[in-house]
Amino acid sequence: MSAPTSRVVTLLTDFGTADGYVGELKGVLCTAAPGVSLVDIAHDVSPQDVDGARLAVARYWRRFPVGTVHVVVVDPGVGSVRAALAVESEGRFLVGPDNGVLSPALLHPGASCVRLPVPPGVAPTFHGRDVFAPAAAALVSGAALESLGEPHADVVLRRTPEAQRRDDGSIAGIVITVDRFGNAITNLVAWRGGQVEVAARQLPIVRTYADVEEGSAAALTGSSGLLEIVVRNGSAASRLGLHRGVEAVLRPR
Amino acid sequence: MSAPTSRVVTLLTDFGTADGYVGELKGVLCTAAPGVSLVDIAHDVSPQDVDGARLAVARYWRRFPVGTVHVVVVDPGVGSVRAALAVESEGRFLVGPDNGVLSPALLHPGASCVRLPVPPGVAPTFHGRDVFAPAAAALVSGAALESLGEPHADVVLRRTPEAQRRDDGSIAGIVITVDRFGNAITNLVAWRGGQVEVAARQLPIVRTYADVEEGSAAALTGSSGLLEIVVRNGSAASRLGLHRGVEAVLRPR
Amino acid sequence: MSAPTSRVVTLLTDFGTADGYVGELKGVLCTAAPGVSLVDIAHDVSPQDVDGARLAVARYWRRFPVGTVHVVVVDPGVGSVRAALAVESEGRFLVGPDNGVLSPALLHPGASCVRLPVPPGVAPTFHGRDVFAPAAAALVSGAALESLGEPHADVVLRRTPEAQRRDDGSIAGIVITVDRFGNAITNLVAWRGGQVEVAARQLPIVRTYADVEEGSAAALTGSSGLLEIVVRNGSAASRLGLHRGVEAVLRPR
Repeated sequence: MSAPTSRVVTLLTDFGTADGYVGELKGVLCTAAPGVSLVDIAHDVSPQDVDGARLAVARYWRRFPVGTVHVVVVDPGVGSVRAALAVESEGRFLVGPDNGVLSPALLHPGASCVRLPVPPGVAPTFHGRDVFAPAAAALVSGAALESLGEPHADVVLRRTPEAQRRDDGSIAGIVITVDRFGNAITNLVAWRGGQVEVAARQLPIVRTYADVEEGSAAALTGSSGLLEIVVRNGSAASRLGLHRGVEAVLRPR
Repeated sequence: MSAPTSRVVTLLTDFGTADGYVGELKGVLCTAAPGVSLVDIAHDVSPQDVDGARLAVARYWRRFPVGTVHVVVVDPGVGSVRAALAVESEGRFLVGPDNGVLSPALLHPGASCVRLPVPPGVAPTFHGRDVFAPAAAALVSGAALESLGEPHADVVLRRTPEAQRRDDGSIAGIVITVDRFGNAITNLVAWRGGQVEVAARQLPIVRTYADVEEGSAAALTGSSGLLEIVVRNGSAASRLGLHRGVEAVLRPR
Repeated sequence: MSAPTSRVVTLLTDFGTADGYVGELKGVLCTAAPGVSLVDIAHDVSPQDVDGARLAVARYWRRFPVGTVHVVVVDPGVGSVRAALAVESEGRFLVGPDNGVLSPALLHPGASCVRLPVPPGVAPTFHGRDVFAPAAAALVSGAALESLGEPHADVVLRRTPEAQRRDDGSIAGIVITVDRFGNAITNLVAWRGGQVEVAARQLPIVRTYADVEEGSAAALTGSSGLLEIVVRNGSAASRLGLHRGVEAVLRPR
């Protein structure tokens, strides 16, 4: 057990902030890990949207320095038999429920995982405060993962479905999420040339927003390396009626 | 005056963030208390919802370490004759308006309170920036409470009304707040067994969400020790038409 | 190049938080500038609302201590030919797109500005993560402004339009923004006495909210020194139908 190289704990929840639940969780962290640096990721994840949270985690978990602890609590099954997990992967730690939300780190080669014990006295509806925050405080203070619980192998994994190559050379994907700007991110891997068919339209593949006429739709490679459907200075989701699961077909040139 | 044991200042307001008011307040704090650790609680409290803010404060104020300063600015009476307060209670400090929002700390045994002077030059509409942030900076830098103003005893206190025991053995309470998930928190103290009558329904009392069928309503003990009305994976508030003040009657078994 | 006097980086974006984009940006900052103190200003600026963000920046940029770095990413033209800027003004640094959002600092006497190079490999849709965050990390770590890019003089500047004095002694202004409370902030400089005509009503000029009857409208001097139209314990914007650009005429007494 060496000194931690980072004192950062990040927080992603679907609690909202106004009710004070996130405040309680932060209080527990500041008390148990004095001097910790708390970094908010988001608290406005749609209530119980495990997949949305998972996609966000995939974006940020490895951007933070080694030693960072990520608290991820989107937890429809709180208080049930679902396990409470702590994960170590690529030198970062994550704590959260065993419902697939931690999959981006768990699927990474070399990840380890323990099951956090749930002491009898804790609130069955608020493991964020009573289980995950104390575990995060211990990890950011230098505790070893294996000191927090028994190894746990049989975890719930959720993956973004892979796009499928068809006989005609096209690749059939779907919209996996829609962001705040109304950009519809697909599971189609970055591609230059050709078209994307979505909502009965053929859209050109461009480099950036500025290559599209104001108000027109196109596909481009987003910052995670996936094709996304955009409308310049507008919302592709509302313009084209896009939402998670809508089919998007890449026809490469 | 000893060295502070914590350099944490927390912030709860109803300012929203997009207008930059919270940014101004944070700038004042970072300038007046270099090295301070700012922790956001919430800025999306409903505008002027003193009671909602008070319930949130009750949740988090003592979870933070001794020496923490809590800035709480939900202040419909800003610029009027209402006093500006600084409070010390259980080793934590709070600053905010004298409208009841600080009651959870003020009602605690041993609390002390001073009235902050409002210098003539300050903006009558923004005591958060010009009165409360400077006081918080002083307190987190080690100033003694009594150095900030004259003792102030005649404070406004707001309490959650207590549930009432009836002759038939039932206990009549109300919904005191609805959280982001649509859970309706009552003023009924935790109880196992029996039923809660709300919105003309008899609801069982269960241990956690997982004990309820998907989409069904029940009562359970929330993380503050009060009974709350929940719908598993849904909103009890919208399903049952619950809001603050709706009656909820506990019929113990 | 001297040691930085502040390790604060503030963040203003229109990204929202739920998608994880802000998380990515924060991860880059924590990795490239270990020990940095991240301060959220806002992430809920209306998508692509450059003027709203500019008004917020005007409020907070100089409230923070010398050495602070402000990241400001409201960037409809990301990936186009618009320049990426780093600015030094009054001892503070700002990074963001060359679309006028940094004008409050650029218009300040003595401001310097460089154009940040955009390396070929960066995501054309996410300069926040790939250009602005690395520049902010360098600046907060003590890098000199001129080490980051070539001087850039021909910047886009946006100004709040000035109110116009008319022959009859009145001053014609407009609503420049509406805040979360529904207060409509004008470009009329603070004034005592007389009236403000807006939406075909004559409103008295008062000192603070408490001088207005519950539910009545008035004008008062806001915390930036500009007149704003308010309704006590209500929204002036929705009551009077106010939005950006609506005329407001000061008739001084």
